[in-house]
Amino acid sequence: MAHIELNNDLPGIRGLMAYRPETEKPLNFLAETLLRDDNNTLSRGERELIATYVSYLNDCFFCQNVHGAMAGHYLGCNIDQIDRIKKDFKTAELDGKMKALLSIAASVQKGGKNVTAEQIEEARKNGATDVEIHDTVLIAAAFCMFNRYVDGLATWAPADREFYTNRAPQRAEEGYQSSVYK
Amino acid sequence: MAHIELNNDLPGIRGLMAYRPETEKPLNFLAETLLRDDNNTLSRGERELIATYVSYLNDCFFCQNVHGAMAGHYLGCNIDQIDRIKKDFKTAELDGKMKALLSIAASVQKGGKNVTAEQIEEARKNGATDVEIHDTVLIAAAFCMFNRYVDGLATWAPADREFYTNRAPQRAEEGYQSSVYK
Repeated sequence: MAHIELNNDLPGIRGLMAYRPETEKPLNFLAETLLRDDNNTLSRGERELIATYVSYLNDCFFCQNVHGAMAGHYLGCNIDQIDRIKKDFKTAELDGKMKALLSIAASVQKGGKNVTAEQIEEARKNGATDVEIHDTVLIAAAFCMFNRYVDGLATWAPADREFYTNRAPQRAEEGYQSSVYK
Repeated sequence: MAHIELNNDLPGIRGLMAYRPETEKPLNFLAETLLRDDNNTLSRGERELIATYVSYLNDCFFCQNVHGAMAGHYLGCNIDQIDRIKKDFKTAELDGKMKALLSIAASVQKGGKNVTAEQIEEARKNGATDVEIHDTVLIAAAFCMFNRYVDGLATWAPADREFYTNRAPQRAEEGYQSSVYK
């Protein structure tokens, strides 16, 4: 049961967004910009993977499953492949740029000062642009917010992981702006 | 020096916002809604104090000074009084509700699952509404994002703390939406 009376039975962040529409708007605007905006050289799948990995590190069941399913949908991976990346991205089938960006995201999750010049250099060596590095840091930071929001208010989440996989194609089509009304 | 080439010499988050206007918009919309919206029973000063305290716990020099100066401006406190609250809010001159909310914010900073039912109960006993508890958790979570964004990209910050105090009245008047253009 959530820490506060939400007056709805929606799971995770959706229950919070329906409860407080004033803050839903900027939060969904941010998610839409970070994860779906077309003006970005990181694919939607890559950005969802960064979000998934940070949510995994923060142990947020709802977010890591929502965004893991989205990453799988865009990248053509099943749930086992996404789980394997979460557990050890360094040995997963990912290109060097993505591995370098996930390493930066992992440092951001611990705290901003953990990002090193060597990690930035490694990302650049693997072809990452400054904007891609910027967006990786901001996506990782944003999920340190979303995860804390979802778990800090003790929202509930469907335990069946297929719930998230089944919902991903519709979410991919509709985006985040309208998610609270579905 | 920042980890990426920002092509401007603005400090902290302002340099990042000028660099990436696409993400500046939702971020400032969020800050404006959380910290300045008038439809809120927590005062602007109380909300800035939550932001300050979380930024202090995350050791983000830029954010704790920007928002500490804002909190001081709204609450009529000087920099020493704000510093005293950051160091030990439990013995500071704050009402019971504010102390209970800062305690929740401190738990959110560690991770969402650290918030306990007892902390929520204590906040309610001291007169906090569910919306106030919601907003406290979200402000604390949001500053876990802003702090990581600012430090994860190694932005610079003016060392002179008067810089922040001097700027607070103008920021209070103008709000966050337009901050990148000033």
